[in-house]
Amino acid sequence: MSSNQPLILVVNDDGINAPGINALTEIAKKFGEVIVVAPDKPQSGMGHAITLDSTLHLKKIEKDGVTAYSCSGTPVDCVKIAVNKLLPRKPDLIVSGINHGSNSSINVIYSGTMSAALEGSLEGIPSIGFSLSNHSIDADFTAAQHYAEKIISQVINTKYTNNICLNVNIPNLSKELITGIKICRQAKGNWVEDYDERTDPMGRKYYWLTGKFVLEDNGTDTDEWALTNNYVSVVPVQPDVTDYTISKEIKHLENE
Amino acid sequence: MSSNQPLILVVNDDGINAPGINALTEIAKKFGEVIVVAPDKPQSGMGHAITLDSTLHLKKIEKDGVTAYSCSGTPVDCVKIAVNKLLPRKPDLIVSGINHGSNSSINVIYSGTMSAALEGSLEGIPSIGFSLSNHSIDADFTAAQHYAEKIISQVINTKYTNNICLNVNIPNLSKELITGIKICRQAKGNWVEDYDERTDPMGRKYYWLTGKFVLEDNGTDTDEWALTNNYVSVVPVQPDVTDYTISKEIKHLENE
Repeated sequence: MSSNQPLILVVNDDGINAPGINALTEIAKKFGEVIVVAPDKPQSGMGHAITLDSTLHLKKIEKDGVTAYSCSGTPVDCVKIAVNKLLPRKPDLIVSGINHGSNSSINVIYSGTMSAALEGSLEGIPSIGFSLSNHSIDADFTAAQHYAEKIISQVINTKYTNNICLNVNIPNLSKELITGIKICRQAKGNWVEDYDERTDPMGRKYYWLTGKFVLEDNGTDTDEWALTNNYVSVVPVQPDVTDYTISKEIKHLENE
Repeated sequence: MSSNQPLILVVNDDGINAPGINALTEIAKKFGEVIVVAPDKPQSGMGHAITLDSTLHLKKIEKDGVTAYSCSGTPVDCVKIAVNKLLPRKPDLIVSGINHGSNSSINVIYSGTMSAALEGSLEGIPSIGFSLSNHSIDADFTAAQHYAEKIISQVINTKYTNNICLNVNIPNLSKELITGIKICRQAKGNWVEDYDERTDPMGRKYYWLTGKFVLEDNGTDTDEWALTNNYVSVVPVQPDVTDYTISKEIKHLENE
């Protein structure tokens, strides 16, 4: 392995055995030396969770000729331990995914895939999360791989800020039907939830989360618009969640 | 219980048995009818995690004369199931905490306390997260309660937008030494991590996350500045993480 090659960390939230991470590893290998560090079990919806009250375990495995570690923690744990403990040097790029399911709009804050990418950018490493709008284990990643290759190539060859973080969502279409790439903002939207209430054999109630996504945004500059119109959406992401629009309205609290 | 009274949901991430949630419940009771829904175990650092691959269990308990439920899920799960399943109507306010430990700067994205509050605001319910800069189980919440009461009173009596979400951090000082309240932005900062590597009795390695916070912001308008200067910091929070500053720089990706 040449040390002149870029070092690329591949992570995900669907777990080390998900087809999506294999699809992404295959593309990442074209650009340099690859190390995979991914959760040992599915970690969808883990958001920016980290393991504070417990310990982490790592297991080295061989994965399609690539050095890989399964990690007992969350997607963000995988990035932290890879960057701060496992890797021989700071990686040049972190790619997360390819997620089985979209992470557009508000899903970005629940997504382990995107939280891992954001964590990478917090460590000063350009990071990209890729998600395909198809939850199936049998999803076809061909078009997603095609666009992942284009975008990785640009990010690795362009001198952006080290804190760049991209949320890339690919519509579930064949390559020929995708219009192209669109730079977007995060659409305003939300989940309307319900809980499916069931009773276990001991007579105790338990609940499954169910819900449907509601778009609350008519903009034609959003990731939801792009996906609906057959574009690959690219939303640049950053960690400041301050609401700068409301500061004036609550200024009077300072008089309390 | 009068139905004219405001309905207030109290949540946290330190778990239903943490002293901080009792301190907050005590204050919330002054403003209306209170229901507590909190994790059945500590859930610090859970960020915006939700339970997707598993079920949730609830256990009704009596807590200082208040109806309370312990929930097997994350802080965000607690808000979702409370609002969508448990509560008789949409609450007028959600308060989260009082967290044992600060949630200023970048900690807001790892914090279960603040993710629960943000989730509340996504449901269209004014929400406030309170955190005291003291991790101890024996922390003195007197000053935090004093300021929680002031801020809750304003939020419940002022017609802000329903999506208002406040990140309130209280310095670990007696009431007399606190200068007042300051409206702030989230300071730029980050954790520099290390992993403490140990060996278990079977000879296998395992890791504990350790690290120290590094402030990367000289602003005098940040939450970190406020706390260092003995103010209670109030940062309004919202869920759009789009990086609007970099869109132009990556526009060329659309030509790929």
